[in-house]
Amino acid sequence: MAVKPNTRIETDPGVGSSYRHKTKRTINHDGSFNVKRINGEFTMRDAYLFLVRIPWWLFLLILLFSYLLFNVFFALLYLLAGIEGMSGFEGNHSWISDFLHAFFFSVQTFTTVGYGSTSPMSLGVNLIATIEAMTGLLSFSVATGILYGRFSRPTERILFSDKLIISPYKNGNAIMFRVMNGRSNILMDLNINITLGLNDSSKQGYARKFYRLNLELDNIKYLPLSWTIVHPLDENSPINGVDPSKIPEMDGELMITISGFDDTYGQEVYRRFSYELNEITIGEKFKRNFHVDDEGYLILDQKKLNDTETISLNK
Amino acid sequence: MAVKPNTRIETDPGVGSSYRHKTKRTINHDGSFNVKRINGEFTMRDAYLFLVRIPWWLFLLILLFSYLLFNVFFALLYLLAGIEGMSGFEGNHSWISDFLHAFFFSVQTFTTVGYGSTSPMSLGVNLIATIEAMTGLLSFSVATGILYGRFSRPTERILFSDKLIISPYKNGNAIMFRVMNGRSNILMDLNINITLGLNDSSKQGYARKFYRLNLELDNIKYLPLSWTIVHPLDENSPINGVDPSKIPEMDGELMITISGFDDTYGQEVYRRFSYELNEITIGEKFKRNFHVDDEGYLILDQKKLNDTETISLNK
Amino acid sequence: MAVKPNTRIETDPGVGSSYRHKTKRTINHDGSFNVKRINGEFTMRDAYLFLVRIPWWLFLLILLFSYLLFNVFFALLYLLAGIEGMSGFEGNHSWISDFLHAFFFSVQTFTTVGYGSTSPMSLGVNLIATIEAMTGLLSFSVATGILYGRFSRPTERILFSDKLIISPYKNGNAIMFRVMNGRSNILMDLNINITLGLNDSSKQGYARKFYRLNLELDNIKYLPLSWTIVHPLDENSPINGVDPSKIPEMDGELMITISGFDDTYGQEVYRRFSYELNEITIGEKFKRNFHVDDEGYLILDQKKLNDTETISLNK
Amino acid sequence: MAVKPNTRIETDPGVGSSYRHKTKRTINHDGSFNVKRINGEFTMRDAYLFLVRIPWWLFLLILLFSYLLFNVFFALLYLLAGIEGMSGFEGNHSWISDFLHAFFFSVQTFTTVGYGSTSPMSLGVNLIATIEAMTGLLSFSVATGILYGRFSRPTERILFSDKLIISPYKNGNAIMFRVMNGRSNILMDLNINITLGLNDSSKQGYARKFYRLNLELDNIKYLPLSWTIVHPLDENSPINGVDPSKIPEMDGELMITISGFDDTYGQEVYRRFSYELNEITIGEKFKRNFHVDDEGYLILDQKKLNDTETISLNK
Repeated sequence: MAVKPNTRIETDPGVGSSYRHKTKRTINHDGSFNVKRINGEFTMRDAYLFLVRIPWWLFLLILLFSYLLFNVFFALLYLLAGIEGMSGFEGNHSWISDFLHAFFFSVQTFTTVGYGSTSPMSLGVNLIATIEAMTGLLSFSVATGILYGRFSRPTERILFSDKLIISPYKNGNAIMFRVMNGRSNILMDLNINITLGLNDSSKQGYARKFYRLNLELDNIKYLPLSWTIVHPLDENSPINGVDPSKIPEMDGELMITISGFDDTYGQEVYRRFSYELNEITIGEKFKRNFHVDDEGYLILDQKKLNDTETISLNK
Repeated sequence: MAVKPNTRIETDPGVGSSYRHKTKRTINHDGSFNVKRINGEFTMRDAYLFLVRIPWWLFLLILLFSYLLFNVFFALLYLLAGIEGMSGFEGNHSWISDFLHAFFFSVQTFTTVGYGSTSPMSLGVNLIATIEAMTGLLSFSVATGILYGRFSRPTERILFSDKLIISPYKNGNAIMFRVMNGRSNILMDLNINITLGLNDSSKQGYARKFYRLNLELDNIKYLPLSWTIVHPLDENSPINGVDPSKIPEMDGELMITISGFDDTYGQEVYRRFSYELNEITIGEKFKRNFHVDDEGYLILDQKKLNDTETISLNK
Repeated sequence: MAVKPNTRIETDPGVGSSYRHKTKRTINHDGSFNVKRINGEFTMRDAYLFLVRIPWWLFLLILLFSYLLFNVFFALLYLLAGIEGMSGFEGNHSWISDFLHAFFFSVQTFTTVGYGSTSPMSLGVNLIATIEAMTGLLSFSVATGILYGRFSRPTERILFSDKLIISPYKNGNAIMFRVMNGRSNILMDLNINITLGLNDSSKQGYARKFYRLNLELDNIKYLPLSWTIVHPLDENSPINGVDPSKIPEMDGELMITISGFDDTYGQEVYRRFSYELNEITIGEKFKRNFHVDDEGYLILDQKKLNDTETISLNK
Repeated sequence: MAVKPNTRIETDPGVGSSYRHKTKRTINHDGSFNVKRINGEFTMRDAYLFLVRIPWWLFLLILLFSYLLFNVFFALLYLLAGIEGMSGFEGNHSWISDFLHAFFFSVQTFTTVGYGSTSPMSLGVNLIATIEAMTGLLSFSVATGILYGRFSRPTERILFSDKLIISPYKNGNAIMFRVMNGRSNILMDLNINITLGLNDSSKQGYARKFYRLNLELDNIKYLPLSWTIVHPLDENSPINGVDPSKIPEMDGELMITISGFDDTYGQEVYRRFSYELNEITIGEKFKRNFHVDDEGYLILDQKKLNDTETISLNK
């Protein structure tokens, strides 16, 4: 399929330009790359990032599980040091009751709740409790840090329309999609940047060429509503001249980066996204997704981000 | 009313340019937009941002209420598990005294104060206390994070004069307002940017056009005092030629963004604000709001930000 | 004294340009402005910033004092609720022993240490303890936040030489001073910017004009050693033609801003400083303040930042 | 050895340009400078930075040691105040058993675990415990802050190939090395900047000249894989014309800075590195260090960063 020859070919944006085999899309909808690393090193920092990024239910499960495991571990230490080194335990000394006694003593030490109904008497138990109380406080320090990290890490929830469409635009047609801020804060000074990667399998292996796409508007001051991104299929487009109905058949990917200033965190946020050309729907246009209510408020309906209607393309 | 035709019309800054009905002003004095979102998703992050942004009295009330609710919840669990599983409780077992006993035991566990006058005896109570002590510590971890977030989030308190005035300026006149830092730290490298949105209701529905306003000075190195922002009504103004006394009758809004570097937080801060043209007062000028005291200090009187005196305009 | 007329006059950097009375220098050596604010509002945020900026000894004193005050306050509440509502207190009920008993019970509750030798029995004492334990934990949360803020706030310790000198430079002379990083981390991409404010008292009141000074080098990639800043007194200087020996007699101030990237905090840091022209020493040059040791290390002697030797100026 | 004369000589990047003796390389592989400071001041901030930067094992050892030391210190205070002021201690009063009793009481107070098996009775012990409980909580606050600082400080792990090679490039040859992100997050908008420092010992002492090196590509949008940095030895190179085999014999150092945006921390990260010219291997090229697996994933093998094969240079 003919790609317009005189369009500037961008150098590799860093994702490689030739492969021996066919690859997956470069960037997924969640912004991650389809790259796996092997033989890397795993550090405390990676553990922190892992715990900061996983969903809440998993994070809480890991917390609970670690908490129980810690206490089981220390309970076994206390049993080793001798259950008779703890006060407040009379009655039946079965294995299970000894363990439970040691376990709850461990809990009371680890959390520093220390009721005192059980308290350490022997040197061994006292020493273990000394270490456990410190470990407990530090563990909750770490948990505090990770919890704060989970909340305070500047992240964005920029939503992209599921639909990538070709619509009439001026005298011609254009590729369009729509973005919206999924949070209630205001993003400012947004910039968008789209690179089209086109695969070519005619040679030995797979080669990819990269083109920067021209946009009707590539920055916007505020994003309180939604923003429709428009790449006109005109003479500046690398796929100018290709029949719109053939574009979804091309093997290509739009790699998108949006950046903006998040005034809640006082920091720059970035969002990566990608569409494959085969996701294109032809001959639709986006319906307005906000209205004005009786009081004069603009009402933005987040569910309508994907609402389109059919329309015929320009020739 | 005639708007100067050859002034550059800025593209939509992201707030929409046509509506079916008349809308409220775009940006409020507190920088928020008159946009409401429906059908959005509410996440932990939104909860965090909510708790970070609400006023202190409300935040403390929510903390106190959650604390009591938590303890009531666990008190009920302990009652369910059997009050006889706690030591240290002799005497009249009325419903209310049982509940109070369980409630205070819960408090002692949740806060890890654990006096031990009451302590868990049964397996059930022990298990619940195990969970509660952990929950308690994590809750205070979360509270620590939110408290820190409330303090440390880089925010600004840039104050705008209530008054938007038209004053004589050089041989003509100018629209002016005044800003000041409401905090005692120093903002640096400030930039200001004003977009005038003019509504036009002559067509089907409401249309809005946007003009970037020329300023006498749009950046300043430091802001220890106040800063008077000046838009000269000269040939570069989109409303050049409009009689000053008619400007307040126009349906328009000045959308303002100030950014600067806050050396306390080491971060960029942003402030949005807006004036509607009908807020303009004609024929006033700002009075000096600082003086030099006997020791040579500049004394900035924050109350005088709005002080003006009348003056006749230039023709 | 003649100031070269064709030098670009910089617009007001934001510090005012006319005063009724003589003012102090604009910027102090610690970077603060000689501006006092009156009629301002004091918020929690200002309290936070106050506690983050004060010296350590004062901060710890305030912590200790607040801690004692809190416990005295709660001790009085417990006394009000009735000392007999606490267990573990037998013996002489003098006023002082009652107070001490209540005070130490308060400490044990506030810190959640809760030995249990004293524990709450009555409803009143239980309720107060419920509030105190929560208050205690939150207070330590706040203290944690402030402590972390004190450590983690990106600050710099860029040191300026006490001496501002006029030295020979190329065929002429130059105003020079020297800066150094007082911390062991590396600052990168430093920029410096100097504005000369010259006062003129010949008119009604005091007027000030501002000139941006040309520098031999106004940015530097790294600052592992020291950096000598050089303003050549050539035809681009606003005080070109003034006899060097007369410069210290001029009423002027060099307002200096240095910015750089601190790789420890991953943030931009700023430093303000100023010299008054009467601080100038004429006919000195800076001595090298580092040497190479036997192993090939560069040894930077922080004490030698101010070391100069006399030298005669060029004509 | 002839250095091409018409290449722009960069001004000193801030590391000095003349020395009395031969110096070590300027920048080490870990990005630190071979500069030692003497007569500097050591502040709390430096202590914080020290604790944030040391390896985990050392940090945990220091924590444990401080914890024990603190408790030994308070144990001695309690002994001084009189062991009889603590309840719960009957039996043999040897020196060692008294100390252990006081030590474990201190632990229970410091960590606020407060079992109550031992509790303060005398005024002296109560007062010391009042201070210790507060100190304990604040110490854990500080530990929380430092732990959080260790995790959350935006750092990078950009890896550089051990090998610096000269490879054929187009019709000539080029100096090349390879970088990779050692973490699983994605770095964006990377910039690289290389300064060549060439030493000249022919004069009195040692002089150094600095040249900015031209690169085939000095920025890249994403870094999911690795990036080969290429300095062509063409007419724009300061060492153009030098026989490649002689380059390793020159006394020079490549000082490298990479910056990029880390989307996990929402901040800019910087990495310094250097190669000495004598680290060059001649006539090798980098082997591809990733492949495509059956599912289409790109597999990046971090161990292959240094893999090269021999190749003959262009003339």
